[in-house]
Amino acid sequence: MQPRIVEVRQGVLKKNDLLARELRQRFRAAGVYVVNLVSSPGAGKTALLEATLRGLQPEHRVAALVGDLATDRDAQRLGRSGARVRQITTGTVCHLDAEMLDAALADWDLEDLDFLFVENVGNLVCPASYDLGEDLRAVLLSVTEGEDKPLKYPTIFNGADLALITKIDLAEAAGFDREEALNNLNEVRPGIEVRETSARTGEGMAAWLERLRELARGSRRAPAPLKAE
Amino acid sequence: MQPRIVEVRQGVLKKNDLLARELRQRFRAAGVYVVNLVSSPGAGKTALLEATLRGLQPEHRVAALVGDLATDRDAQRLGRSGARVRQITTGTVCHLDAEMLDAALADWDLEDLDFLFVENVGNLVCPASYDLGEDLRAVLLSVTEGEDKPLKYPTIFNGADLALITKIDLAEAAGFDREEALNNLNEVRPGIEVRETSARTGEGMAAWLERLRELARGSRRAPAPLKAE
Repeated sequence: MQPRIVEVRQGVLKKNDLLARELRQRFRAAGVYVVNLVSSPGAGKTALLEATLRGLQPEHRVAALVGDLATDRDAQRLGRSGARVRQITTGTVCHLDAEMLDAALADWDLEDLDFLFVENVGNLVCPASYDLGEDLRAVLLSVTEGEDKPLKYPTIFNGADLALITKIDLAEAAGFDREEALNNLNEVRPGIEVRETSARTGEGMAAWLERLRELARGSRRAPAPLKAE
Repeated sequence: MQPRIVEVRQGVLKKNDLLARELRQRFRAAGVYVVNLVSSPGAGKTALLEATLRGLQPEHRVAALVGDLATDRDAQRLGRSGARVRQITTGTVCHLDAEMLDAALADWDLEDLDFLFVENVGNLVCPASYDLGEDLRAVLLSVTEGEDKPLKYPTIFNGADLALITKIDLAEAAGFDREEALNNLNEVRPGIEVRETSARTGEGMAAWLERLRELARGSRRAPAPLKAE
């Protein structure tokens, strides 16, 4: 049975990659910068995103798609920022894929947006395999999760463009070893850019927002990609 | 393509259920009580398990199987408790299954054990679908993850026999709303037994160990199951 599963899985991933490539071209043509946030459940994606959506407005036009197995709690919470937000509920599926994004964006005009954030399903395994056509994949690691997570879930950390160490206001209470976390991130993904934030106290948020603006400007100056990377 | 995937998935799950039933009969015949620990990455499974293995010895004979995508860090850490421990590395697979357990236990004599703990891969989605033949499935929810996790990952909470709220020493620093967490657990799994622990301070650990002993005694008095539940 094993070879058949592998074959089906490769078919699914190939189909996703083709659609992700189309999405990436549409995003680039519309001038919208797309960020895919991935992490464990409870690492603070929604809190970070809420602060990010508030911080980028009104200067920038922002929106978010939020993936969860069940409930539209995150969309309700994020909607209070004033940004356009849509929930994607995946049922029993442990990740978002390009087809889900494509369907959720069907009646949105991407030209109206500067930034689109995608909050993936909380999971350190499945989302690693699905390209969503994003410009930036940011992986969150909260100080309460343990410094060893990059070593134990190498694929998702290796596939990320940037790591955010979150909940840094809890670092001392949690006994967080910052050096060890940075070493582990660098072991799995040498030279990965790391930002440290607390959505609760606001520490590090201004620098994170400025970095996003800078990345978006760089992306708009670059030529549109001919094919998915 | 979709129907073919569903069909393959059902085939995999059915095969797993049959093997889990066999494992359950072997565990029961050997008089070993088996606990499957599931949670997000970083919810504190290893810390709880380390304290549990230490607390049950030398009175009881204990062992653990530990699942991770990569590294044998947890097995090394748990092995320091003096218990027999074996790491299962799953590569890119987001859960343990009955076949992996069966292979890992091949050269172990189950009659030598009173308790066998299985630390699943950190994931709130995939492990829900895989019966491992365990007596007790315990789901961990740490106070730093957010009270809404049971609502957002209902399948794994609904499939658990017992919930452990972990890291309670961090409850105040994290702004944990205990009532809301308990309400959400009860909404998804009415009447679920809840234990609250801190492996760091030891709070709640004695009660948890006593409950495990009690459950194991009850299981040994019960007749062996004729088929998987």
